[in-house]
Amino acid sequence: MKRKKYALHWGLALCLVYFMISCGDTGRGSTETAPLASWNESRAKQNIIEFVQAVSTEGSEEYLAPEERIVCFDNDGTLWTEQPVPNQILFSFDRLKAMAKEDSSLYDNMPYKAILSEDTSALKGLRAEDIVQIVAQVNASTALDSFDAAVQKWFATSKHPRYDRPMKKITYQPMIELLDYLRAHDFHIFIVSGGSVEFMRPISDELYGISRDDVIGSRMKIETVRSGDSLHVERKAQLEWNDDKEGKVTSIEEFIGRKPIMVVGNSDGDLAMMEYAAKQTKKTLMVYLLHNDGEREYDYAQGVLAGSLSEGLEKAKENGWTLINMKTDWARVFTE
Amino acid sequence: MKRKKYALHWGLALCLVYFMISCGDTGRGSTETAPLASWNESRAKQNIIEFVQAVSTEGSEEYLAPEERIVCFDNDGTLWTEQPVPNQILFSFDRLKAMAKEDSSLYDNMPYKAILSEDTSALKGLRAEDIVQIVAQVNASTALDSFDAAVQKWFATSKHPRYDRPMKKITYQPMIELLDYLRAHDFHIFIVSGGSVEFMRPISDELYGISRDDVIGSRMKIETVRSGDSLHVERKAQLEWNDDKEGKVTSIEEFIGRKPIMVVGNSDGDLAMMEYAAKQTKKTLMVYLLHNDGEREYDYAQGVLAGSLSEGLEKAKENGWTLINMKTDWARVFTE
Repeated sequence: MKRKKYALHWGLALCLVYFMISCGDTGRGSTETAPLASWNESRAKQNIIEFVQAVSTEGSEEYLAPEERIVCFDNDGTLWTEQPVPNQILFSFDRLKAMAKEDSSLYDNMPYKAILSEDTSALKGLRAEDIVQIVAQVNASTALDSFDAAVQKWFATSKHPRYDRPMKKITYQPMIELLDYLRAHDFHIFIVSGGSVEFMRPISDELYGISRDDVIGSRMKIETVRSGDSLHVERKAQLEWNDDKEGKVTSIEEFIGRKPIMVVGNSDGDLAMMEYAAKQTKKTLMVYLLHNDGEREYDYAQGVLAGSLSEGLEKAKENGWTLINMKTDWARVFTE
Repeated sequence: MKRKKYALHWGLALCLVYFMISCGDTGRGSTETAPLASWNESRAKQNIIEFVQAVSTEGSEEYLAPEERIVCFDNDGTLWTEQPVPNQILFSFDRLKAMAKEDSSLYDNMPYKAILSEDTSALKGLRAEDIVQIVAQVNASTALDSFDAAVQKWFATSKHPRYDRPMKKITYQPMIELLDYLRAHDFHIFIVSGGSVEFMRPISDELYGISRDDVIGSRMKIETVRSGDSLHVERKAQLEWNDDKEGKVTSIEEFIGRKPIMVVGNSDGDLAMMEYAAKQTKKTLMVYLLHNDGEREYDYAQGVLAGSLSEGLEKAKENGWTLINMKTDWARVFTE
């Protein structure tokens, strides 16, 4: 009896609070920004909203339970800019220079020497595998926490070579809004990127609200080493997994164990995961971001080192996938 | 103005609904069970509650943000019974028999022949690597969805060899309650098991409320195969990763990318992840379940094929880790 009485009092109090909140909320609603506020009205925006409503509205024919609402985002060129070179390369070169202050032997060996001496002809001669070796060397660590801190510091203090903005702010505002919109509809968001997990995980929560365990990517070899009575994890200067093209499909199966219903990417490297995800009976949405805005960002048709899209675009047109036209569909590009 | 008026009406309506719900809820509250209801009052229960309160109560000196509340559970012998042999072995033998009906060539080759012909001397001669090969052969699949369905069907229809209960109900009720309790305090729960992900993922949500991507374990080799215009994922009859001992630490780093603050296990195979997790400045809790209840479950001191605990127990005592005494700490063992 006594419990019931308290329940009534609490009920009344909470009722009042709820009432105030509900009025306040709606009051703000009139001036608050709608979802996807930085998106112009466009076919792409419409496709996204229709898809999200269809799979998340109970009673809809295409309704899917929340655990089935898996979406995979590429990172470079999809969530943040990847030009003139991917951010991980910028970081790696900066980090290599910092490392050389502690270990001058790096100056003696290629390919590190080419970067450290800023020898133009040696730089031009660098092959893809040299870049991989530099990235691996930089990612190698016996103290993972301090590596994380170095990545976080770099993002907090470095600026993009073209824009006068910190590296933290070269994420795309419309994509941040898309992440929020999907989360609000109980989608589970994963990053599936060619970039390495070592570089993305330390900042994925701050930049995207995506937790470390939901970041999938290329990765270095890890070893658990026992020395005496103590254990620690070491990261070797050796690429264990190149998370690109078909590799992205394999790692989706390994890390998520479920087919995504939505994939967002921008390059041919994302095509395999789109082909994989598109082939199922559930409703799906495949989305390509087209970089055609040389003024505000980059026009990839002018030639790019990374992120080109040709086969993927053909397939997208063939299959009626959604294309985001950066130039016309986005009212704003970067995060403020 | 119009918007505001609707807001008031909705506010009133929702207020009424809320009022009804809040009264109803509290009414039920008086008969509802407390957390960890199947646990007797014990040192283990007290340690768990104290730890959870300390890291999850704002203002506590040992408070940790939700994203830091990572807990890793072993599965076999920790969340469900692993005797007389681990469930995955029971499943694999059943599945092998079903496969042999389609592919009689399995009868011609060891080690499959030993199982299929039920040849006692051949069975006795099976080595650990033979068992691994059988499990790998069974897990191999070109149609992952139908393999999932086979696992789910097996759990729904098979019974445990000792207990007259379906395989779905050989999970430990006190551990299910512990999972609920941790979730209610915003812990992120992962399984880190020697069992294979192929076998655990299809039932982890139903049995434990743990989603597929939070299940880490041994795994078979996966390949993404392109044939013509189509892509599919194949699982090979080849063990890619043995998730045991130091291997569990490596896969925690690979899949979670963050040190757990709590680890729950039952065997020497879980010791490495406990040693790893215990070494940090944050508050931690390492928990071993002791199987000493031959009447209701198994007394491992009588000899077991899998799950023995000796070095781990020494370390636990040395470090003051928490020990769950199944016989005295659990009022009930299995899920109803």
